[in-house]
Amino acid sequence: MVPVQTRPSIAALRNVATRLRIDSVRATSEAGSGHPTSCASAAEIVAALFFAEMRYDPRNPQNPDNDRFVLSKGHAAPVLYAAWAEVGLLKRDDLLTLRRFDSDLEGHPTPRLSFVDVATGSLGQGICAAVGIALNARRIKSDYRTYALLGDGESAEGSVWEAAEAAAHDGLDSLCGITDVNGLAQSGPSIWNHDMEAYASKWRAFGWHALVVDGHDVGALLDAYEEARETKGRPTMILARTLKGKGIPLAEGKGGWHGKAFKKGEELESVLRALESQFLPEDEPAQPPGGPRTRRDQSRPAAPPKNATVGTPSYKLGESIATREAYGTALAKLGDGDDRIVALDGDVKNSTFSEKFEAKHPDRFFQNFIAEQVMIGSAMGLAARGAIPFPSTFAAFLTRAYDFIRMACISNVNIKVAGSHAGVSIGEDGPSQMALEDLAMMRAQPNMTVLYPCDAMSTERLLELMAYHAGPAYMRTSRPKTPVIYGPDERFAIGGLKILRESANDTATVIGAGITVFEALKAYDQLQKAGTSIRVIDLYSLQPIDSDSLLRCARETRRLITVEDHYAAGGLGDAVAAAVAAGGVTVERLCVREIPRSGTPEELIDHYGISSPHIVAAVTR
Amino acid sequence: MVPVQTRPSIAALRNVATRLRIDSVRATSEAGSGHPTSCASAAEIVAALFFAEMRYDPRNPQNPDNDRFVLSKGHAAPVLYAAWAEVGLLKRDDLLTLRRFDSDLEGHPTPRLSFVDVATGSLGQGICAAVGIALNARRIKSDYRTYALLGDGESAEGSVWEAAEAAAHDGLDSLCGITDVNGLAQSGPSIWNHDMEAYASKWRAFGWHALVVDGHDVGALLDAYEEARETKGRPTMILARTLKGKGIPLAEGKGGWHGKAFKKGEELESVLRALESQFLPEDEPAQPPGGPRTRRDQSRPAAPPKNATVGTPSYKLGESIATREAYGTALAKLGDGDDRIVALDGDVKNSTFSEKFEAKHPDRFFQNFIAEQVMIGSAMGLAARGAIPFPSTFAAFLTRAYDFIRMACISNVNIKVAGSHAGVSIGEDGPSQMALEDLAMMRAQPNMTVLYPCDAMSTERLLELMAYHAGPAYMRTSRPKTPVIYGPDERFAIGGLKILRESANDTATVIGAGITVFEALKAYDQLQKAGTSIRVIDLYSLQPIDSDSLLRCARETRRLITVEDHYAAGGLGDAVAAAVAAGGVTVERLCVREIPRSGTPEELIDHYGISSPHIVAAVTR
Repeated sequence: MVPVQTRPSIAALRNVATRLRIDSVRATSEAGSGHPTSCASAAEIVAALFFAEMRYDPRNPQNPDNDRFVLSKGHAAPVLYAAWAEVGLLKRDDLLTLRRFDSDLEGHPTPRLSFVDVATGSLGQGICAAVGIALNARRIKSDYRTYALLGDGESAEGSVWEAAEAAAHDGLDSLCGITDVNGLAQSGPSIWNHDMEAYASKWRAFGWHALVVDGHDVGALLDAYEEARETKGRPTMILARTLKGKGIPLAEGKGGWHGKAFKKGEELESVLRALESQFLPEDEPAQPPGGPRTRRDQSRPAAPPKNATVGTPSYKLGESIATREAYGTALAKLGDGDDRIVALDGDVKNSTFSEKFEAKHPDRFFQNFIAEQVMIGSAMGLAARGAIPFPSTFAAFLTRAYDFIRMACISNVNIKVAGSHAGVSIGEDGPSQMALEDLAMMRAQPNMTVLYPCDAMSTERLLELMAYHAGPAYMRTSRPKTPVIYGPDERFAIGGLKILRESANDTATVIGAGITVFEALKAYDQLQKAGTSIRVIDLYSLQPIDSDSLLRCARETRRLITVEDHYAAGGLGDAVAAAVAAGGVTVERLCVREIPRSGTPEELIDHYGISSPHIVAAVTR
Repeated sequence: MVPVQTRPSIAALRNVATRLRIDSVRATSEAGSGHPTSCASAAEIVAALFFAEMRYDPRNPQNPDNDRFVLSKGHAAPVLYAAWAEVGLLKRDDLLTLRRFDSDLEGHPTPRLSFVDVATGSLGQGICAAVGIALNARRIKSDYRTYALLGDGESAEGSVWEAAEAAAHDGLDSLCGITDVNGLAQSGPSIWNHDMEAYASKWRAFGWHALVVDGHDVGALLDAYEEARETKGRPTMILARTLKGKGIPLAEGKGGWHGKAFKKGEELESVLRALESQFLPEDEPAQPPGGPRTRRDQSRPAAPPKNATVGTPSYKLGESIATREAYGTALAKLGDGDDRIVALDGDVKNSTFSEKFEAKHPDRFFQNFIAEQVMIGSAMGLAARGAIPFPSTFAAFLTRAYDFIRMACISNVNIKVAGSHAGVSIGEDGPSQMALEDLAMMRAQPNMTVLYPCDAMSTERLLELMAYHAGPAYMRTSRPKTPVIYGPDERFAIGGLKILRESANDTATVIGAGITVFEALKAYDQLQKAGTSIRVIDLYSLQPIDSDSLLRCARETRRLITVEDHYAAGGLGDAVAAAVAAGGVTVERLCVREIPRSGTPEELIDHYGISSPHIVAAVTR
């Protein structure tokens, strides 16, 4: 336990705020770009949080029991960096390296910095991550609190209201948002300007405790933080009325200063003189807190958790099971042995089969209803705090959260995204429910692992590998049932593939994944009868990809033919083509080349050119 | 003008609702899948709308003055189809072709059908499109009204609240939403079940007139529609308390029946018997309306609008202008001559330069603040009703609206998306602001035109081509200034490219686009000095792509080297590789292969391997 901290005087906190402003202005002017006026509006909010409200170890930002702070308005990064300099983690001089290539003090915060959990800068995401961070406190039985600082312009993002709904539904009273209502957005006034009730009524309608304060009145802020801390059963949003550029006569409350650094020379000097004149006499400077307030729950295990396993799956060869169902089964088993595993779903748990996990681990299952952005956002927050989250929905609806997936990749957090109902093989529901661009969007992220199993056995094995692979990963599952083709002793690897049929006189290599593996196998049988041998590959790992084996097959069989239940660009065909380009090898592609329509899976697979007859035709062409 | 319609009796409308239920049940049972219980809850809502509230020509669903209906809860498609059969546009027997490959009555509605403006089925999108459709009424000076039917589960989508904010901000009193609060979502109760105030308070907080009614009480619905019609200055949301599966004893108000058709045979027969027993005696059956109520504004031009032109751009060769700025200039000019052109922006109009359009055409500029989903969604609605909308934001933030872009492509609507600030060349702001996957996500959509100009002149010409090209299109623009390299007489084409340097002894073809064209030209100059000739291509049209020219260059120069300010997967390199694969040609790729960081544009372009020295090295390798 750390000693109870003496609350600094108001004058001392105001002086902290003035120093945060000075540091933000200096750093952005040195960089020649950035958002000093967006920092200035938030200076008292941040000063009061960091020096009188939050409890954390300023020397160890990753202490699991620290209160957490998420800068959802990521463009105010300099004030965050200044705060960590003020508490002593960073050197003040380092602040002047802002935005430089050789500095981790980037234009918007990223987890390269020990005190940043998730990258922000795409507005409306930090508050979603904060929901996940607050949920994590329950998971690890810590009573740390989570604070998220939003901008008023940011409140127009729908994801903010997904977060509001989720946090209220889960009764997250350890979560406290602060909206820095400075009234000015980038290109003009924010939508409600300083109409504080326009904001408060929304948060209240969404089930939050909401209060309005003067965001430059340190005493009022401290009272508000206390009120938030004492509010039980629901989260609190503090709506802080502020002025953009506060304390800077040139810019205070004025338009036209968004994202502009003050020019070095007389402009900067006059700003600094004005700010320096705002220092107050103080008895004693504000001190950073001594450590987290948390009383650790004794039931929480001290030993680091071990990786779990799905054991030996009991599927029989030839048995028919959809990969989406095997996903749910495997996830539930993995959760038995590792309480870091959590699942999230967007009201389709009975389709993605995440309900199997919920049935066994209800306290680690989070229902996000139909709100994919906060589902991925809160998974980011959970992952940043040590959980291994598996958010799942129809793969088509992951497009809804692509910006969140993008930022999760920038954060390089450990999220394990599962998308079911891939491709035209879902059938009658039609194109709105078919994911035909998910491989493209996932593969575009350079650090995303992309897996696509074809049977239940490989799904289970790949899920286990995916869980303990460091970094973001995606698994694509299918709606139709497919036969089990792998035995329990088969080994899989991230970056691997399986050669299912191979002979010395193969005339082509057909590369499928998911449901097209079975079309390729059917084509193999037909071609065998006609005296033609082909090689068949199950490319279950699209990223990373086994270039060496593909190149070897290209050398041995001369032709590579890919077949995928996905659009032409960015999927399996492109993945293979890029993997073998260095060997001077090209690829023939069978894929879905137009927007499909409703029909039976069989009709659609055939009509869009990815069925076994099309493979046979391509081989014999 | 059409004669004033006699309002049908309540009994007649209730009988319409019963027929809608019967048709929805029959069609889904025949299909063997679908959502009959989601149709049943909405039957009175739809019956009262189509037979007593909406004014439209039932024989001409595309009459520009018709009241519009958007089925935001797209999975209730059968009730929509049944309504159009009931008014006589479809044959009742056709309803039994639901979800068949040879039928346009797909699992979820698409604009293959004349009465569908935008495809729905990804929840939370129809209401965004309805905002655009309502905005379009202002554009064409029609007083048609727009109705959108939402599900309660759908209200968890953040995009719904983006739409709520946008519609209230624009005072769209011609917009009326109806939420079918049946209390049951797919996998369990919806988040607020039948807590009607939980919904009403949110809509009211967002500035809407909201009222709660019994959604099975036709009289109450008619009164609510009238109240909505008479509410001025703000949109209305009618929260209709309903029962899922209403009228079907087996399923009414019960869980476990989402998305399940009743089994043909005794199960179906018992459902039909129950429904048929609900017919009431009626004096006169309900009649469809005779035509739109609209009094056409006489100032509205009768002649169809002509395509406009940007004229002859006045840029001088060598002059430095960012393509994003040329975009704004061209759009403003195009808007002078064609009032179908509208612009939307997400609070970055001073960065995307859409402010140039706003300055000249303020009534056709829509500020969506920081809400990219409703920006694209409302552009979809505008496009569906004849406008040519140009929504713009940082290309990175288009990832936020990828699901909307996906559905716009399924709808094949005429939206012209503009993404600025592409790639690492934005510099210091860091990765959260850099679009490095936008080409991948846009190219993945098979009917999306993808353009990427390198200078101001080509930007203007391509923008004009893009505006009048049928279907969705995307233009990627850059932050840095680039020199003008094309003269005013240069011709461009969708699907074209420009060979900028060419000789008989070129040893490689370097293919760039946007800022990398200039890196390629610098490399050319350096290599020329060393006695090596290369060909240089500006690939301004990535989709469609000029395969023939690329193949010719490959034959003539042997090597193709692509260089792009984009990640490896799905961008320019993959586009070229796919285009030349049939010729047995492979591509060497220079691209961004990891998550970048902050720095100056020059540092980043060089560090991530896409600068002229890297091109020189690749050529001489």
